[in-house]
Amino acid sequence: MNERHTEPAGPTLEELRQRLVAFAAARHWEPFHTPKNLASALTVEAGELLEIFQWLTPEQAAAVMADPDRAHRVRDEVADVLAYLLQFCTAVGVDPLTALAAKIERNELRFPVPDFPAEGEEVNP
Amino acid sequence: MNERHTEPAGPTLEELRQRLVAFAAARHWEPFHTPKNLASALTVEAGELLEIFQWLTPEQAAAVMADPDRAHRVRDEVADVLAYLLQFCTAVGVDPLTALAAKIERNELRFPVPDFPAEGEEVNP
Amino acid sequence: MNERHTEPAGPTLEELRQRLVAFAAARHWEPFHTPKNLASALTVEAGELLEIFQWLTPEQAAAVMADPDRAHRVRDEVADVLAYLLQFCTAVGVDPLTALAAKIERNELRFPVPDFPAEGEEVNP
Amino acid sequence: MNERHTEPAGPTLEELRQRLVAFAAARHWEPFHTPKNLASALTVEAGELLEIFQWLTPEQAAAVMADPDRAHRVRDEVADVLAYLLQFCTAVGVDPLTALAAKIERNELRFPVPDFPAEGEEVNP
Repeated sequence: MNERHTEPAGPTLEELRQRLVAFAAARHWEPFHTPKNLASALTVEAGELLEIFQWLTPEQAAAVMADPDRAHRVRDEVADVLAYLLQFCTAVGVDPLTALAAKIERNELRFPVPDFPAEGEEVNP
Repeated sequence: MNERHTEPAGPTLEELRQRLVAFAAARHWEPFHTPKNLASALTVEAGELLEIFQWLTPEQAAAVMADPDRAHRVRDEVADVLAYLLQFCTAVGVDPLTALAAKIERNELRFPVPDFPAEGEEVNP
Repeated sequence: MNERHTEPAGPTLEELRQRLVAFAAARHWEPFHTPKNLASALTVEAGELLEIFQWLTPEQAAAVMADPDRAHRVRDEVADVLAYLLQFCTAVGVDPLTALAAKIERNELRFPVPDFPAEGEEVNP
Repeated sequence: MNERHTEPAGPTLEELRQRLVAFAAARHWEPFHTPKNLASALTVEAGELLEIFQWLTPEQAAAVMADPDRAHRVRDEVADVLAYLLQFCTAVGVDPLTALAAKIERNELRFPVPDFPAEGEEVNP
């Protein structure tokens, strides 16, 4: 993560989640923040991130951050996806970090590290 | 966040991101993890989260976590969305926390807190 | 379909599909029209249609076509979804009408018409 | 369209739309078929179509219909996308063929056929 600054530490996920809660409360937006609406908004924003890439060649896609306009759009859509994911988690009372840690543990059992990966084998990345 | 345990601290977002990097490397999945593929996978998983809610009434949606099967699916899809978002961020070299903090600051300027919110006013939550 | 004019007949789906093929060919866009790119574009446009509804109350959503600006956006996104679906079908050689007729027949077996629908029964609309 | 049978003619889009209306009515599913729910379902199904392609190489994606299992999934998801698009159009009273014809006409003005397409020019397919 070449943008990661460890000195001084940036905000934590939980701090940003709380800022989003306060942001919505100050604007009286909570009635709109139902789980269903937030899951819709999350999907819409993920689509907007995908839109940046949909017609790019593999070479253009790999160099997406070298184009300042596209790089800005990528950061903006990443932020929107994360914002709606955190607001969704707030609405349903799920901790995303705990959920992801549990999923990684399930996936470590489901997809054991291959000793001798067969050539051409099907994968599920 | 009723699942948040602050004592002892759970994993940070950066720790989980590094576990995902190691997970993919051990399985030789990096060639599949292009920005375009990961943006597609993120959108697909967001759709799977939305699928849980698509036919629910507002009452059923509000009580989604009271149903153990649905609650498991919600946690599972939240984990998948976050996993692909982190892998996407790794592929393009974006720090999601920095991107979200910057977006919140832009939104604080774009949507000032209303002193006297007009009744029936249009909002953009 | 209150916009359907049966006298004189409008274009058929197949005629519009052929116009889209000619449109792309005249602009040398075929290299971009891979199945994967078109499935991405279809998903992005479906998200843009959903975006119109994401914060609307059920009452606002039901009246969406009474708002000229929203009505135009709805027609525009419906057209985009159908255009990319037809272009996807061209790219993979699938006839969408045959595929849908076959699916309806499968669903008639899968979801038989209930004689006495149980109150509160689970549905899968 | 190698699956297109012109002798005898298959069903028209309007005939399939009416079968879907009758199908939902017989199962008392109309209350679920709000514009917002149907736009969600459309997005979810588009994501399921994209899921088939998300990890495929360009070569695998181009040969998707040569794999009987993938070919069946493609036809099935195409049918689902078209079904929800038609049900959405029913719910809002939009004729999809008229909407698409109008959009093609707007796009013919917006993207004129280039006389001398510049090499490497930006396109918006």
